Amino acid sequence: MAQQNFQPRPQDKFTFGLWTVANRGRDPFGDAVRDTLAPVEAVKLLAEVGAYGVNFHDNDLVPIDATPSERDTIVREFKKACDESGLNVPMATVNLFYDPVFRDGAFTANDPAVRAYAVQKTMQAMDLGAECGAKIFVLWGGREGVETEACRRPDEAIKRLREALNYLCEYALDKGYDYKFALEAKPNEPRADIYMPTTGAYLAFIATLDHPEIVGVNPEVAHEQMSGLNMTHAVAQAWEAGKLFHLDLNDQVPGRYDQDLRFGSANPKAAFFLVKFLEDVGYEGARHFDAHAYRTEDYQGVKDFARGCMRTYLILKEKARQWNEDADIQALLAEMNEERNELPRFKPYAKDGAAALRSYHFDRAALAAKGLQYEKLDQLTIDILLGVR
Amino acid sequence: MAQQNFQPRPQDKFTFGLWTVANRGRDPFGDAVRDTLAPVEAVKLLAEVGAYGVNFHDNDLVPIDATPSERDTIVREFKKACDESGLNVPMATVNLFYDPVFRDGAFTANDPAVRAYAVQKTMQAMDLGAECGAKIFVLWGGREGVETEACRRPDEAIKRLREALNYLCEYALDKGYDYKFALEAKPNEPRADIYMPTTGAYLAFIATLDHPEIVGVNPEVAHEQMSGLNMTHAVAQAWEAGKLFHLDLNDQVPGRYDQDLRFGSANPKAAFFLVKFLEDVGYEGARHFDAHAYRTEDYQGVKDFARGCMRTYLILKEKARQWNEDADIQALLAEMNEERNELPRFKPYAKDGAAALRSYHFDRAALAAKGLQYEKLDQLTIDILLGVR
Amino acid sequence: MAQQNFQPRPQDKFTFGLWTVANRGRDPFGDAVRDTLAPVEAVKLLAEVGAYGVNFHDNDLVPIDATPSERDTIVREFKKACDESGLNVPMATVNLFYDPVFRDGAFTANDPAVRAYAVQKTMQAMDLGAECGAKIFVLWGGREGVETEACRRPDEAIKRLREALNYLCEYALDKGYDYKFALEAKPNEPRADIYMPTTGAYLAFIATLDHPEIVGVNPEVAHEQMSGLNMTHAVAQAWEAGKLFHLDLNDQVPGRYDQDLRFGSANPKAAFFLVKFLEDVGYEGARHFDAHAYRTEDYQGVKDFARGCMRTYLILKEKARQWNEDADIQALLAEMNEERNELPRFKPYAKDGAAALRSYHFDRAALAAKGLQYEKLDQLTIDILLGVR
Amino acid sequence: MAQQNFQPRPQDKFTFGLWTVANRGRDPFGDAVRDTLAPVEAVKLLAEVGAYGVNFHDNDLVPIDATPSERDTIVREFKKACDESGLNVPMATVNLFYDPVFRDGAFTANDPAVRAYAVQKTMQAMDLGAECGAKIFVLWGGREGVETEACRRPDEAIKRLREALNYLCEYALDKGYDYKFALEAKPNEPRADIYMPTTGAYLAFIATLDHPEIVGVNPEVAHEQMSGLNMTHAVAQAWEAGKLFHLDLNDQVPGRYDQDLRFGSANPKAAFFLVKFLEDVGYEGARHFDAHAYRTEDYQGVKDFARGCMRTYLILKEKARQWNEDADIQALLAEMNEERNELPRFKPYAKDGAAALRSYHFDRAALAAKGLQYEKLDQLTIDILLGVR
Repeated sequence: MAQQNFQPRPQDKFTFGLWTVANRGRDPFGDAVRDTLAPVEAVKLLAEVGAYGVNFHDNDLVPIDATPSERDTIVREFKKACDESGLNVPMATVNLFYDPVFRDGAFTANDPAVRAYAVQKTMQAMDLGAECGAKIFVLWGGREGVETEACRRPDEAIKRLREALNYLCEYALDKGYDYKFALEAKPNEPRADIYMPTTGAYLAFIATLDHPEIVGVNPEVAHEQMSGLNMTHAVAQAWEAGKLFHLDLNDQVPGRYDQDLRFGSANPKAAFFLVKFLEDVGYEGARHFDAHAYRTEDYQGVKDFARGCMRTYLILKEKARQWNEDADIQALLAEMNEERNELPRFKPYAKDGAAALRSYHFDRAALAAKGLQYEKLDQLTIDILLGVR
Repeated sequence: MAQQNFQPRPQDKFTFGLWTVANRGRDPFGDAVRDTLAPVEAVKLLAEVGAYGVNFHDNDLVPIDATPSERDTIVREFKKACDESGLNVPMATVNLFYDPVFRDGAFTANDPAVRAYAVQKTMQAMDLGAECGAKIFVLWGGREGVETEACRRPDEAIKRLREALNYLCEYALDKGYDYKFALEAKPNEPRADIYMPTTGAYLAFIATLDHPEIVGVNPEVAHEQMSGLNMTHAVAQAWEAGKLFHLDLNDQVPGRYDQDLRFGSANPKAAFFLVKFLEDVGYEGARHFDAHAYRTEDYQGVKDFARGCMRTYLILKEKARQWNEDADIQALLAEMNEERNELPRFKPYAKDGAAALRSYHFDRAALAAKGLQYEKLDQLTIDILLGVR
Repeated sequence: MAQQNFQPRPQDKFTFGLWTVANRGRDPFGDAVRDTLAPVEAVKLLAEVGAYGVNFHDNDLVPIDATPSERDTIVREFKKACDESGLNVPMATVNLFYDPVFRDGAFTANDPAVRAYAVQKTMQAMDLGAECGAKIFVLWGGREGVETEACRRPDEAIKRLREALNYLCEYALDKGYDYKFALEAKPNEPRADIYMPTTGAYLAFIATLDHPEIVGVNPEVAHEQMSGLNMTHAVAQAWEAGKLFHLDLNDQVPGRYDQDLRFGSANPKAAFFLVKFLEDVGYEGARHFDAHAYRTEDYQGVKDFARGCMRTYLILKEKARQWNEDADIQALLAEMNEERNELPRFKPYAKDGAAALRSYHFDRAALAAKGLQYEKLDQLTIDILLGVR
Repeated sequence: MAQQNFQPRPQDKFTFGLWTVANRGRDPFGDAVRDTLAPVEAVKLLAEVGAYGVNFHDNDLVPIDATPSERDTIVREFKKACDESGLNVPMATVNLFYDPVFRDGAFTANDPAVRAYAVQKTMQAMDLGAECGAKIFVLWGGREGVETEACRRPDEAIKRLREALNYLCEYALDKGYDYKFALEAKPNEPRADIYMPTTGAYLAFIATLDHPEIVGVNPEVAHEQMSGLNMTHAVAQAWEAGKLFHLDLNDQVPGRYDQDLRFGSANPKAAFFLVKFLEDVGYEGARHFDAHAYRTEDYQGVKDFARGCMRTYLILKEKARQWNEDADIQALLAEMNEERNELPRFKPYAKDGAAALRSYHFDRAALAAKGLQYEKLDQLTIDILLGVR
């Protein structure tokens, strides 16, 4: 495998947000370490490293106070740069967190005017994304939360969120936009507690909307792992429900501030099982990297970072293929899942079948006696991961 | 307030699991510190401290290897003790985690025979609960998880879980049981990662079942807080979706092993907002305590523990009433939520309304300028909590 | 107690950093929400709310690029404002984290020139602090850490840190400054892993310095609790070792980004035991608040925040007094600590005493049988905390 | 590398506790899944898989209620089995946590009789270890902690701990035992908060003992990582202070219950840097695995587990060698650490040197401009780890 060339190709559908490679390295305790990278330059950088597409928040591309004509010029130049570079724009989103107006939330803010403004800003961002060809519209409610529970009843916040989402779905349908919304959960930071803290919470919320068919989720590695949750399980639940519309790849150590590290760099084993799942089920959406380079890097380092995200994905994809083809592993899996004919079936439900099952004698001790060989299975996985098998 | 008598009354609906007061204090590094407390004795203890009801896992009451006649004797004596003590049995559940047969899961185990046995055991536990009058059947899938992702695809686990749930719903309906199922999430422990790690994940899962109308959730303070998530937000989402069928009160420091501490004892402020929410919305279900006494206690200490759970709930309930009646607090809330007439409405959606909203001029700086006084609001809350207001 | 007036007095020694009340509310996802507050204005604000003193980083007061004459003017005006307001400057510190030059660390950076510059900047900050009368010099190595272990051996980082500390101690002694250094630990953020992540690690490090007698620690609530550690235990170890030279009071939910919340606002019970410890042992240093107001606040809210920190401290101090005087509590404590005369002593060590102890018969079962009444003790504490006793 | 044979050899000094391979898989929610494995059988199992040595708690080998003659028989048979198997006993320890007598702590318990008993039990365990040839005596104070701070002042706990340690050091010296003590930290579980929660805390504590020269630490991967701390940094501080007397290898996801997973199985990248550090500095102590097999395993799986621990260590050791010999990596490291001649030196301290340093002009912007190439360096590390370089 060491001889392979893990170069990204368009069919790998690797995308990056404008905000990722143009991230200037500002943090709560430090100033920016890199100069501004204009969107057109970011597009060129992404093309150079081999990305398939580029995504953006409205204000990554168009400053919040731009005039309409400034906006149009910027969009024209950006689309030209994308065309020339061969980059797609599969996804767009809206920034409802940076401006001080959102300090108490956007769709859930107590001030009705802030809620209305947030909806307006999202409509405009949807227009912008549609103009650039985006088919996925991500919503991350970074400020939808609290420092003190005293300020708002949490069920009221959910109602406000639903009201906004329903409205925006209507707007998309009314405008004939070919959008799917992808809702992105996060448990905390920048608010002490953010509403809809997990992908699961959003999946449940979607079922209560007027147009659930056009709304899915955008799970992010770092956001699930911040809470110590299992990203692959979150992705699996979304996928199994037909709601995995997009995802954000990066890395994160559990129980910390939002790190947005290079994909696979904090825990390559967890990343392996995520890649394996996406490849096993045939996920066809973008592999979007929502991460950024360390603050120690200049823009050469940003390229190293972006290349590393894609390279590690491709290495892990190759290892997933190897794992699936490993005869010892497949034999272990087959053995532990073996069906026995004598068992009463419990599918579909039937009165007599239920009675039969209820009275069947199981030999509990025998069922508990057999070693399942999961240590062996996991060590084989480690061997493949470390390249010694 | 100090003069009040925070004594539990039946209408407070305080319940305890048999396993809580009869917990013997065994832990991963230590042996039991208290003698066995027989179910009938536990019922008497609960009656003595003023509880309204008692809940149980099948094997809290009936040993897993009891003969049918042993079972019947035990149940008869237990019901008699409940009757004599005036205790109700609002909820029952099934133990799918203690016996070694479940070491790889119950409904999601790889061995089809274990899955079938888990369904059988649950049917029998449902029969037992119904016989004792339980109307809520809790399912906690403590072993439904993994140490190594290699052993099972996570979407397969979800399908297995759904298959079992659908079957059990049919069984309940077929038998004419008046049950609501309440699914209880937990992120980890005793498995490295448990499927359906949050209340949100279960709410989403329920929407995919054949009979979602009889299935809701049973959020637990400790289980949400283990992941650092906000229990009150989880409860609010469940409530708002009409799915708060039961709940488990206890306490827990985030990012640790499952502590099941006395309600309100780890963080009384978080507990206050939970009690306030339950009382504000008029939750009518049981206030179930799923906690246990420290290992330093004898059964006198167990009574202190149980009394403390209820007492703290009642103190916090009284504080919630005081908070709601506090004129300064209400004035702050009114001010921060003030509607302004000139704003374009965004409800319901209409083409012209949307156009008006899209082009309305918001004075972003003005909206961002006003202090929201949440520090003041939170300090007033602290003052009420600490009894100095 | 509700009738008491929890107003700060000078003898309470409440201090705030310039950076706390002048914090503009910038965070990783959002811009500043409050205008700049000049140091002289911050001094006035602190005097207005009743603080005893004000602390600063060099660059809170003097911009990093100020000329010597600009510096002198600023310092003169600041000292004048302090004098007029009656505020003291008990502590000063140095900012070794904001400027991009420190992106790889300060004393531990790989570039020898950065290390030398960090030492120079600290010398100048020590001069500045001494000029303002500070007796404590805090060092927080916010950038002394890594995102990738690959960049530096961790033992090399420790050696570099020691080299810098030893030099700065010599500088203080050489200059005749009456400083005690107080080292402040933090586990992560803004680096993925910061060296010396806990107060314990710094206490151990101090013992390896050339002048341990002038070096102690500055534990911070948020920094210990980020890792889920117990702040009161960290403070107790520092105190017991004679090394509690300063401390940072604020609040923090475990397992999250650095929140720096109003003291006592996240978990008043944990705050209670910290206050109780400080008052019980007679800690005479400043009660320094290293926190900041929510982003929802204007400067009126900042005053509410600052007043709340001090008010909650004083409320908890009063409750600590009440706890110490509670006869029931004292009786429980006495009972559980009772000495028995028949026991062999193990202090001091003596050969025959050791032999006697080794062969003494302990009745293990009897020792384990007695309930320790800690649930009761803790509930009494809750009652006092909630003001119902 | 795939062709290499990662077989353990005696010089690798791989050791296991009796309690690790004989772990029966009991957990807070489940019963034992494996039959008892007698010490002599455990020795044989360890010899079969290629271990160098075996360690024990007193009661792993000798039941707590054994008579002196039973004890002597057991010890004789155990030593015989070790001799025949070629296994060493480098370390022994004492169980001060399992028996109910220790429910409030051992050395720090409130009951003076429990403290005395704990010292007695440790003396006897030291005798036992010495008899078996152990040179390291580990002390893990698993019960030295609290659920409620109300029960004990934390500085009093530290004093009690010191008193016990000083006594035990005297006992070791008096008896002429060739022991080094190794103190093992843990933040929580089974107590809500354990005193001395980190390796750093114990390193600081050791400096306050009467005989610090014979006391060091025993850092454990899981115990540091439970708090999200960096195990390699903890080990580095201990090593640099000359106090790394022993260590416990296993694996753990941060922010969870104590998992004790197979070494390297949760995060192989973190494990890599730990192995690299131990090999780079030439650590000569035992590589002790304090872990246990999943509950899904029979004793064949326990062997797979034990073999996996050693195999992964050896794979990572080989990768560390490769990393050190990688010319690209070494060139990057050299470049980022380059010295420049013109810089003022700050070592050793001298008045004129300090003056020169204080007035030297640093070009801050130039120092901050250069990219440090840590993304590239980390990706090269990932490539080596995954076996594609």
